[in-house]
Amino acid sequence: MAAKPPAAGCLFCQIASRAVESLIVFEDEHALAFLDHRPLFPGHCLLIPKQHYETLSDLPPELIRPLFSAAQRLARAVETGMQAEGSFVAINNRVSQSVPHLHIHIVPRRKKDGLRGFFWPRSRYASQDEAIAAQAAITKALV
Amino acid sequence: MAAKPPAAGCLFCQIASRAVESLIVFEDEHALAFLDHRPLFPGHCLLIPKQHYETLSDLPPELIRPLFSAAQRLARAVETGMQAEGSFVAINNRVSQSVPHLHIHIVPRRKKDGLRGFFWPRSRYASQDEAIAAQAAITKALV
Repeated sequence: MAAKPPAAGCLFCQIASRAVESLIVFEDEHALAFLDHRPLFPGHCLLIPKQHYETLSDLPPELIRPLFSAAQRLARAVETGMQAEGSFVAINNRVSQSVPHLHIHIVPRRKKDGLRGFFWPRSRYASQDEAIAAQAAITKALV
Repeated sequence: MAAKPPAAGCLFCQIASRAVESLIVFEDEHALAFLDHRPLFPGHCLLIPKQHYETLSDLPPELIRPLFSAAQRLARAVETGMQAEGSFVAINNRVSQSVPHLHIHIVPRRKKDGLRGFFWPRSRYASQDEAIAAQAAITKALV
């Protein structure tokens, strides 16, 4: 795989190249993880591919396993190291994505930590037809 | 890999074996995705390994790529199919995990959809020492 150049002005490319300092918790050939400087809870990490890809969709197939194996190891380490009961692992693609360089949030969780499940306004489909229409739209778009 | 039996009473094992009905949007050898019946937004899917593993930590290495490749394809399909601007891909491990069978939420996102970034009470480390202690705890726990 040809090396992909860093994206001009990308904060996370700068963190990966050490042009910007961060508290690094993990590094291997393909990925780097560091502490989010505005954590949801202490120990909240961001795991990135070293090469610049904007979203999960853009990640090449050969990087799926290295990146998500690292996410798995890091989730375990965040749980153990921060003495947490669980963890939250999440990716925002484009919407709510503060830096357009793919990053996986890994956050320690404890019961009654105030997040109360991350999904507030759950709803229901207005009808079975509406649900079936959503199913059909997604199935049709699968490539 | 030896087949792992379904877990007694597990709703998602029952969905995978078709003992419980769901609106399925994706299926391959290792994984299955279906519509969440209480969606955050229409098109909200849950992607599961067919075999019963409780959390991301429990997933065997050989299933990382099949499961997350499916998550990538499904995130693209949810964005395209639901005409969304982006997506939210998330796993709750133990805390806030309603069904103890690993599941990846894949949710369509649009600007101003009301989620406003999924992280409300971001904070800062009280001191650099506190941040360095978190870094050390996680690094030490990495295996």
